[in-house]
Order: sequence, then C-alpha cells, then structure tokens
Amino acid sequence: MNPERGVQALDESYSDAAKGVIAMARFAGARGWVPATSGNFSARIDRGRAALTATGANKAELTEAGVIEAEIFGPKHPRASAEAPLHLARYRNAPQIGAISHIHSMAATVLSRRHERAGYVRLEGWELLKAFSGVETHETVLDVPIVPNDQDTDRLADVVEQRLAALDRAYGYLIAGHGLYVWGADAAETVRHMEAFDFLLNAQLHEEGFR
Amino acid sequence: MNPERGVQALDESYSDAAKGVIAMARFAGARGWVPATSGNFSARIDRGRAALTATGANKAELTEAGVIEAEIFGPKHPRASAEAPLHLARYRNAPQIGAISHIHSMAATVLSRRHERAGYVRLEGWELLKAFSGVETHETVLDVPIVPNDQDTDRLADVVEQRLAALDRAYGYLIAGHGLYVWGADAAETVRHMEAFDFLLNAQLHEEGFR
Amino acid sequence: MNPERGVQALDESYSDAAKGVIAMARFAGARGWVPATSGNFSARIDRGRAALTATGANKAELTEAGVIEAEIFGPKHPRASAEAPLHLARYRNAPQIGAISHIHSMAATVLSRRHERAGYVRLEGWELLKAFSGVETHETVLDVPIVPNDQDTDRLADVVEQRLAALDRAYGYLIAGHGLYVWGADAAETVRHMEAFDFLLNAQLHEEGFR
Amino acid sequence: MNPERGVQALDESYSDAAKGVIAMARFAGARGWVPATSGNFSARIDRGRAALTATGANKAELTEAGVIEAEIFGPKHPRASAEAPLHLARYRNAPQIGAISHIHSMAATVLSRRHERAGYVRLEGWELLKAFSGVETHETVLDVPIVPNDQDTDRLADVVEQRLAALDRAYGYLIAGHGLYVWGADAAETVRHMEAFDFLLNAQLHEEGFR
Repeated sequence: MNPERGVQALDESYSDAAKGVIAMARFAGARGWVPATSGNFSARIDRGRAALTATGANKAELTEAGVIEAEIFGPKHPRASAEAPLHLARYRNAPQIGAISHIHSMAATVLSRRHERAGYVRLEGWELLKAFSGVETHETVLDVPIVPNDQDTDRLADVVEQRLAALDRAYGYLIAGHGLYVWGADAAETVRHMEAFDFLLNAQLHEEGFR
Repeated sequence: MNPERGVQALDESYSDAAKGVIAMARFAGARGWVPATSGNFSARIDRGRAALTATGANKAELTEAGVIEAEIFGPKHPRASAEAPLHLARYRNAPQIGAISHIHSMAATVLSRRHERAGYVRLEGWELLKAFSGVETHETVLDVPIVPNDQDTDRLADVVEQRLAALDRAYGYLIAGHGLYVWGADAAETVRHMEAFDFLLNAQLHEEGFR
Repeated sequence: MNPERGVQALDESYSDAAKGVIAMARFAGARGWVPATSGNFSARIDRGRAALTATGANKAELTEAGVIEAEIFGPKHPRASAEAPLHLARYRNAPQIGAISHIHSMAATVLSRRHERAGYVRLEGWELLKAFSGVETHETVLDVPIVPNDQDTDRLADVVEQRLAALDRAYGYLIAGHGLYVWGADAAETVRHMEAFDFLLNAQLHEEGFR
Repeated sequence: MNPERGVQALDESYSDAAKGVIAMARFAGARGWVPATSGNFSARIDRGRAALTATGANKAELTEAGVIEAEIFGPKHPRASAEAPLHLARYRNAPQIGAISHIHSMAATVLSRRHERAGYVRLEGWELLKAFSGVETHETVLDVPIVPNDQDTDRLADVVEQRLAALDRAYGYLIAGHGLYVWGADAAETVRHMEAFDFLLNAQLHEEGFR
C-alpha cells in the first residue's frame, strides 16, 4: 500500500463525510429546524471515525470550519458538541448507519412532550411512511420512541441505546421537550428521513388537534 | 411528409411536455408539497404518449433526466413511478386532460384521512372555487372524492376511474392518508388548480378547527 | 402649456401608478395572498383615472403588460378585472384614496366566513392597529365590515359603498368567503395596511382558537 | 492621544453598533417579525451612547440611513422611535446589555394577551431554554414578564424597569397585545435569544392549544 495514497484516501473520505454533514445542516437550517444554534449533524467516515458538527456552530450557515473528526470508540474531541455521545453510540451499535441528524423541529418538540408519558408517538397508515428505507406499504405502524431529556448525554445515550436495542427497526427517536434524532445509510437518505419525520409529525399534530 | 421533420416535431412535443412536467414539479417543490421525494407529475404529448416523472427523482429539483416518455395505452416503462397507472388511466378516460400533478400537501393529507369514511371533502361557497376551469360562481358545491389508499396502483386506478365516471365534473381527488391528484387542460391550468386546491383545503382545515 | 410636455406628464403619472400596482401585487404574491391568479390591485393616476390589474394576470409575477388604465367615471375597460367596479367605486367616493389592494389571505378568508352573520370582525386593543394611518393608540376598536359575496360586482360595489358611507373611518372590508379589500393614500401606505390587516387577522384567528 | 484617531475610533464604534442594529433588523424582517414598519432595534456603542433605529424606517430593509445615535442619559433624539425610552432605560439599568431587539412575532403577540392577567408566560422544561446565556439545563423555569401596554413610553419604561429589578435574571419581556423586547451581550447573542423566544413561545402556543 502506498502510504501517500492511503493518507489521501483518508482525507477524501473525511472531506466527503464533512460535505454530507454540511448538506444535512443547511437543509435543516433552511427549514427552521435548528433555531438558536441548536441541532447537530454527523456522517460516518469508516468503522472508527465520523465527521461531526463542532459545538456552537450556526448550523444553518455551516462550513467545514464547524466540522470536526470524532473517534467513534475513542475519547471525546475537545470541540465536539455536548451531544456527541448520542451520535457516537448510534455508530457503535448500528453498523448500517452512515449519517445522523439532530433537529429541533416544532412538531417533533411539541409531540415529544405531549406523548412523553406514553413513551412513543405512533405513526400509522400514512403513505409517506414509505419514505423510510425498507417500508413498502402504508399499512405500517411505526412507534417513534420518546426518552426523557437528560443533560448527562452519556447516561442519556445508554438509555436510548437500551430502548432501541429492543426494537425491530427504528429510523429515529424523540427526546422529550428537546427534539428529534434521525439517521440513514448516508446523508441523502438521512435528509429524506428528516423530511418524512417532519411531514408525518406535522400531520400527526394536525390530526390530534381534531380530537 | 418529410420524415426528419416528423421526428423533430415529435421531439419538440416531448420536450414541451417535459418542460411542463418540470414546471409543475418545481412549483410544488418550492411550496413543500413533495416531501421526501414524494409526488409525481405528467403532461400529455399526444393521444398515446405522456411525459412522466421517473421513480425516485427529487421533484423539487427535477431536470429532464428525471422525466420519461410513457405510453398511455402500452406496457409500463421500466423507470416509471409506481403511481404511473393513476396518471395513465386519467389520460385514457379523459381526453380533455393535458397535465396531472400528484402532491402531498399537508391540508390534503390531513383532510383525506379525516373525511375518509364520508368519502369526500365538500368545498362550498368559497370565491376561489372560481379558479377551477368552468366554475363561474362561488355558489358552487364541489365534493372532492376520497378513495382508500392501496399499494396496488392498477387496482387503485380502477377504483378511482369508476368513482370519477359517476361525477359530472372533477378537478382532482384525494387518496386517504396519501395526497391529492389534480389535473387541467395543460401544465399552467394544472398549476392554477393545485394552488386553488391547496388554498381551499387549508381554508377548510381552518374552518373545521372552529367547530 | 407645451402639449408635448403635457402628454409626457400624463405618461409619467400613469407609469408611476403602474409601478405602484406592480409593487403591491408582487408584495402580496411573495406572501401567498393571491393564489391561483386571484387578487387585483390599482393605483389612482388622477381624479378620473387609475392604473388597474388586467383580468387573468398572475399577480405574483405582474409586469406592466398586466396593467391597464381604467376610467374612474367612465365605461368598463375591455381587459379590466371583473372586480374593477369595487376599485372604481372606492375612488369615486373617497378622494383621499390613492391605491387599493384586493387579496385572498388565509386569515381574511376564514374570518370573513366565520363572522359573516355578525357582519364585522372586531379588532381591538392591539398595538399594531397603530399601523393604520391616523390611529394613535392601541386603545382603539376597529370593526372591519363584512359583506356577503356576490358575482354581480356592480351590485356588490353599491352594497359596499352604502356600508362604508355609514362609518367614521375604514381601511378595508371583507367579502365573505372571498377576501380583503384594503386601501391607503398611496401604494406604500396600502402595503403597510395590507401587512397590518394580515397580522391582526392572524392574531385574531389565533385568539379565537383559544376560546 | 491623537484626536483624529479618537474621532475615527468613535466613528468605528458607531459603525459597528449600526451594523449590529441592521443585522438584527434584517434577521427579524426576513422572519416576518416586524410587520407594517413595526419593531425597533439598538446596540450599545459605549456607556453613554447607543445606535438605534429611527422612527418610520422599514426594518426588513434597514440601511444605515435608518439608524441614529442616541444618548443613553441625554435628551431624546428628534428622529428616535417613540419606543426609544424602553431601549435606553434598559441600557441605563443593565450595564451587561449590549443590544436590544423589539419584535412583533405572532406567538409573542398572542400569548402576551392571553396571559396578561397572570402577568407572565411560564417557559419550563424545554431544552431550548439553554439557548439563553447562562442557562445550563432544561430543568429551568423562566417566567417571561408581561406588562400592560401604554402609549406613554416613559411611564411604560418605568413600569418595566421596576418589574425587571425584582427578578434574578431576564432575557426579555412582553407588552400585552404588542410584542416582545429581548436583549443580549451583543447583537449576535440577541439574535440567538430572539430565535429562542420565538421557538419557545410557538411551542408554548401549540402546547396550550392541546389543553
């Protein structure tokens, strides 16, 4: 193996992942899903590394300067977002995940509190459920898990991973009063899943308003 | 007839139809009506052919590469959207239709489920009903049909066409939990009808919220 | 007087009025207040003439080609909007009016139907009432008249003018299930009054939702 | 001290503050929070002076021509907004404040009336409370004060300052039926606080709609 080419390949894979992070962040920013510098985004580079938004960056105008390279199994990066553990635990436990977005959309935030006691929001019978990878029919029941909020994000990540380990499939989860985590095989699929969750949670919000 | 000119004429008519498809798709995309790569759009070329969005394309950024030429009476195109039968059946049964849009607007989706049992949403007395071709007064009752959703789109197209055959006039219909189909004499009229449905269904949603 | 300069002055005053019409139309179009080619706009040229949107133009992308010169006391212009009488009657009866906008905003349309029987929407106590020319305090009660819709716009204009003649002051009125008419001393003031009505009617819609 | 450099330094500090004012105003304008020329914005230059929006300017398109230099302890500037006293009293009483925004967002306006009798809107348990400087956990209760509206802004400023003096911390307050005042250490922090208030008050509005 030519070590120079190896280094170049690594740089390219980092750069591609960082571009995915920026694309997801700007997509969310343009839709008002990361108000007041909230939200964070990551894309896997390989088994052990991920590109991740740095703490404090304005996600709606994210550039490469606001992205860091985080070790999935290693110590915390000094500029990592406080919510980095929630990203990295997902990469450790789900090798099929290639990208993760965390957003504060209004419908996600409101429903996460409304259904906190139940522990999930049920999405059922909507055609747009088919936007989630592997869903083939609207005759689907998707219970989106809700976990209580916790400022100790290592502890929170443990609670989340335990909860997700018990599920057959999951595309995301809600933290009560906080927001949505959503993932996919790559940045493009994660963007599609973000849009699907936002649409479905808004539809759900409307539907519950009728009752 | 000069065969070369004939071919050129065909190409031009395809190109014009594809432009109409792209215009409708981008119009809908800019308004958030095709979330998560949903939605599809078509424009008639002639009696037997229509330009139609290919499966999987991002409609909000549609280009000609995402448009195919479909045979209205022929076999399914390999890249056709899974919902192609719903478009083509309309062209077969209604020669006056020149363009069709399928969108997932929020109001359409929510109302399609709320009134599924009734089988229609009634729009009545609104001035904007006059935006539909041939409607001359707000003193109009337009019952927009709702059909149950079905992943077998050939079967669904049959149900839709039977339902529409019984009506004096129709500008569109809803599929429950799914979205809106809307058409017009050409792409421009279909855009106007899309806007009219979106406005009227939103007004209806507001009005029902009061009760 | 140099007749040529006189003609030029007339042309300039028409051109200025047309620019005001276009500015109001595009402002409304950018906010979604003229869906499906609805809405119309005018600006007074002098005592006897006004620039007015032609029928059928897309107001959101209005250019001078979609504006005509209408006679305030004369016969109907062949390309005038069907709602021209509602504009021209205002100019005849209220010499201080320099510009008029007719829009289909959602809040205006929904509230116009909800309060049709009462005959008015009451706006009271909001600071933004001060955006209306001559209002100096939030301690103001503004009853916005609502008239029933009518496709005979000459008859409708008579009903409107009778209703307005009985009021001390008015900045606009609602037609039930239809939309809002709003005016001001010039196009800029009319834009400010449009924005104020839209904000206040939306606030009102929210407030009524609580009850 | 070189007097020329001294003058230049003053000009630069004014110019920086004016840029902050313009940035806040355009941010608010792009989000529809300053309808109908409402809203005003300021940024502290030094202990005794602040850049402040002039009366009547369109805040969404603010330029330096719409900004004046106001004396914090001095007489009223002839072009100052009628609400200048509400800005200047804050600068006099809170030396840590570097910038202030006053906006008419829909959620702020509606909730300011709904909770006027209670005298505050309680924001509690939302993760986005951490967007406010110094808030470290979502387990926070923030009571946003509401004061009755008053056209005498000197008297209103006294009422506001008395109310705020009794609080441990405050990031903003509501005037009933009017809008929101919000501040921060500089223009960037004030923008973040504006976004946080708008998000949280919208979430609150949704949540109250459920009850």
